[in-house]
Amino acid sequence: MTSMAQPLLPTPIEGLETPALLLDDARMRRNIARMRTQLARLGVAFRPHVKTNKSMDVTRLLMDSPSGPITVSTLKEADYFAARGVRDILYAVCIAPNKFAHALQLLRSGVRLSIILDSMETAELLVAFAQANGACFEVLIEIDSDGHRSGLAPDAPELVPIGGYLQQAGMVVKGVMTHAGSSYDSSTLDGVRAVAEQERAAVVTAAQRLRAAGVACPVVSVGSTPTALFAQHLEGVTEVRAGVFVFFDLVMAGIQVCTLDELALSVLATVIGHQADKGWTLIDAGWMAMSRDRGTAKQAVDQGYGLVCDLDGRPMDDLILVGANQEHGIVAHRDGRLADLTHLPVGTQLRVLPNHACSTAAQFPHYHVVGTDRQVHHIWSRFSGW
Amino acid sequence: MTSMAQPLLPTPIEGLETPALLLDDARMRRNIARMRTQLARLGVAFRPHVKTNKSMDVTRLLMDSPSGPITVSTLKEADYFAARGVRDILYAVCIAPNKFAHALQLLRSGVRLSIILDSMETAELLVAFAQANGACFEVLIEIDSDGHRSGLAPDAPELVPIGGYLQQAGMVVKGVMTHAGSSYDSSTLDGVRAVAEQERAAVVTAAQRLRAAGVACPVVSVGSTPTALFAQHLEGVTEVRAGVFVFFDLVMAGIQVCTLDELALSVLATVIGHQADKGWTLIDAGWMAMSRDRGTAKQAVDQGYGLVCDLDGRPMDDLILVGANQEHGIVAHRDGRLADLTHLPVGTQLRVLPNHACSTAAQFPHYHVVGTDRQVHHIWSRFSGW
Repeated sequence: MTSMAQPLLPTPIEGLETPALLLDDARMRRNIARMRTQLARLGVAFRPHVKTNKSMDVTRLLMDSPSGPITVSTLKEADYFAARGVRDILYAVCIAPNKFAHALQLLRSGVRLSIILDSMETAELLVAFAQANGACFEVLIEIDSDGHRSGLAPDAPELVPIGGYLQQAGMVVKGVMTHAGSSYDSSTLDGVRAVAEQERAAVVTAAQRLRAAGVACPVVSVGSTPTALFAQHLEGVTEVRAGVFVFFDLVMAGIQVCTLDELALSVLATVIGHQADKGWTLIDAGWMAMSRDRGTAKQAVDQGYGLVCDLDGRPMDDLILVGANQEHGIVAHRDGRLADLTHLPVGTQLRVLPNHACSTAAQFPHYHVVGTDRQVHHIWSRFSGW
Repeated sequence: MTSMAQPLLPTPIEGLETPALLLDDARMRRNIARMRTQLARLGVAFRPHVKTNKSMDVTRLLMDSPSGPITVSTLKEADYFAARGVRDILYAVCIAPNKFAHALQLLRSGVRLSIILDSMETAELLVAFAQANGACFEVLIEIDSDGHRSGLAPDAPELVPIGGYLQQAGMVVKGVMTHAGSSYDSSTLDGVRAVAEQERAAVVTAAQRLRAAGVACPVVSVGSTPTALFAQHLEGVTEVRAGVFVFFDLVMAGIQVCTLDELALSVLATVIGHQADKGWTLIDAGWMAMSRDRGTAKQAVDQGYGLVCDLDGRPMDDLILVGANQEHGIVAHRDGRLADLTHLPVGTQLRVLPNHACSTAAQFPHYHVVGTDRQVHHIWSRFSGW
């Protein structure tokens, strides 16, 4: 291999080949502290979602203890964190039958893995598998609090029969959980607060129905970054899951959940050319680096494929990525006026703030962790795939 | 680690954990043969673009010889293929100054690496670097044939001065190249043919201007999958680059460059639940698996996040992915009518055809190579990142 050697650390960000994913250490730590303060105020436990960061180095800063708890979105995440000592893991996507064996393998390796489902159909398949293999699964029933994807309505007639069936069949009904994904579509913080209360009420109602029918339901779990940060109270809820808050992103800023100077992730890119007649500056970060996520397209301020900042992370004169090819990004003024390109000669480095932290981070194998001195102090690995 | 063991091969696709990226071996080989036949008819050399596949196992089937030639979109691709014996590599994105040292390292390791640029600004930076390091680079000048991103117009006054400057400074002006990316925006094959002729004429004009001024210009390079397959003739062109044709995708089918039964990539997914009142079936392939690419949104037929097929790869009754969260896909009828979900019970496996092969493949670490027997015969690695 002729790949470039790892730099000696610390090293200035100006010396990095681009594109590179920068993680602002101070902002990340402030974001984590903000969430911890809020959850302490609300009096609920924290089960951080690691799907955003997919890195032990980041997750270590989020967990209450080296053994967890955490929330994952894939069994590969469960494998990765289990191999690094995490023992209390919630897999928060309704389980498919072709993952039962993998889940059982995790259980038998000593991981306390909880799984979720939202139908009698899956419950019956799970029980058949568990009985055939002498296994017992800890199960949460997913509740739909906003109609945005999966889960049972809080008043669904199937809820209590599913809980009762699982309990009678020897499974542990650990509780109920929901995710108010529609909080991402809010346009105001009052909207977020309303979604947070709807999320809380839905899952607490479901828990009460199960308990009234004699089904144990110790855990009542909610979570999304906006609702976690703006819930007024979480009476009846026992734990919160959230993940994006660690980094924040333009979508979160667009719903006023954070400010632009709280965004901890940016893509470092370099100017490679210009099309002066169009007011375009070309950079070496396209959609492969930024991802194809256009989450701000439906918000009041469309940030294109990302908001362009200087090396200190300050937004520059309303420049955004107006277009992206695989390895090319097109920088221009958001209002289409011709830009003065003389301050962006070839070789200039820029930092581009992403629409969606989860999808942009997923494009990179590493975080370059940057201090307030604009030096890279650590290179942290992250993983992808299934 | 508790990760699942690699399966013994061949193994039925029904036994795979999902999501998984399936590669139809027979379709891929037919697609490659189709391109080879076309390029033989046109009488031009082939420099396949490997940015789509990022895998030695696929690229081996595309190259004329084990040493190349190939086209890459990142220096990481160059590193990877150089380490596997490829010696003739074109890096087809205008080079940034912070990549000069990496490019020189590749040259000194014995790789014949060509680089591209489109400005005197970059040419001067390159020459300064080359002279300071006693190096000689082979350079192509990028020509803009359709206004979609980078490159000099064929009649740009800077063209000849840049070529002359590079040559006088001791660089090798290898030629000119262009990429007619606007061919992806065509709505008819006549439109594609017109873009192909525009692409050819632009780059040939530029080559003629350079040669008339005494600048050597042996290589005249064009390439995009649509224009390569539908060019009527390529007089004056010496080589073609293309990459997506290996797999094809829904965007290519939408401009009639291929038919749906030529699409070689699909994402295998599993039904995890339903929302019967909405006509939704939930699967375990969301945008992390499909990517956020919505390239068919602007075409006559919007395929959502992907077109849903049965296990044999036949489209099912107008079902598409109407929505996607990170690990959830929402399957529904494209026209919004309530679907009959009884034939899609939990555990059903589906194959979802992607909008864009480059972006969907980039989400996976492996290809599961499937034969006509619906068995996985090989698991091929691919890489990502920079």
